[in-house]
Amino acid sequence: MTKLVVERLLVNYKTLDEFKNFREFGAAELSMKDDLSANIIENDSESPFYGIYFGKKLVARMSLYRINKQFDQYFDPPQDYLELWKLEVLEPYRNKGYGQALVEFAKSFGLPVKTNARQGSSEFWAKSSFESLTYDPGRDRGESPFVWFPEGVIEQESQPSTTPVTEQTE
Amino acid sequence: MTKLVVERLLVNYKTLDEFKNFREFGAAELSMKDDLSANIIENDSESPFYGIYFGKKLVARMSLYRINKQFDQYFDPPQDYLELWKLEVLEPYRNKGYGQALVEFAKSFGLPVKTNARQGSSEFWAKSSFESLTYDPGRDRGESPFVWFPEGVIEQESQPSTTPVTEQTE
Repeated sequence: MTKLVVERLLVNYKTLDEFKNFREFGAAELSMKDDLSANIIENDSESPFYGIYFGKKLVARMSLYRINKQFDQYFDPPQDYLELWKLEVLEPYRNKGYGQALVEFAKSFGLPVKTNARQGSSEFWAKSSFESLTYDPGRDRGESPFVWFPEGVIEQESQPSTTPVTEQTE
Repeated sequence: MTKLVVERLLVNYKTLDEFKNFREFGAAELSMKDDLSANIIENDSESPFYGIYFGKKLVARMSLYRINKQFDQYFDPPQDYLELWKLEVLEPYRNKGYGQALVEFAKSFGLPVKTNARQGSSEFWAKSSFESLTYDPGRDRGESPFVWFPEGVIEQESQPSTTPVTEQTE
């Protein structure tokens, strides 16, 4: 098998057009389109998306963002980490290592990685050495957080950052 | 039409059983189950879920959490706000005002409300007087944030809280 090459995607109409093949198409893509057509971002500037091409076709992608230490609620010691989302491989290209290659790319930065696992994906994440965290309703708000710990990093103890809503007094 | 009554859901096996009818079943529900079976939380204690019953059947639900001001990245002036998620109405009960009743309940606390709009739901949120925010890749990370502003509250200007990943130097 040839080595799968992960590329940083450029912001342009071709990328946007490729994105239409993916199931998840939301505010991130719409915003990219608006920014392009309003010339707010330059054509071919770097996006937070990474992907793998098969020939000229984008067949797998993910979004990756570095979150500042001050917002870290997951890792001990608190530190910059990567948030990974919108990991998706087009249907005919699944189970061929594309997803794994993207995840390995994310891990190669040596920073902790956090993702919100979609329903039914926990086996994939376990295979990628990700672990599920103890669910914290305030922090996780319905997410299923899975994380990858580089050596020397452990789970952060939960902080009382949020509180359940208390009933109104009438 | 009879007035729809929104109730705070209790943590017990009956509630968990009702949750199985909803499409979204993830870490929050699994954690509730674990906590119950390990006696970590008391049976019938209050959950972050609210719902509407039709007879004895739970037909609509949402999760609601109060987020502390220090974590507010959405509102100006920064303040405590409610995060709303897992809003879901069972198929045969849709378009009967259940979703709207839950949202109105959330608004009745008088705090700003923030949600992540699912694909195709923007019409519902607009009808509920929610507005979409300018997409900020670092803050929103693939979410489609929609918010409801009480009087006197406006959108927070985006802060450079996060930075895109920079390429590795080899």
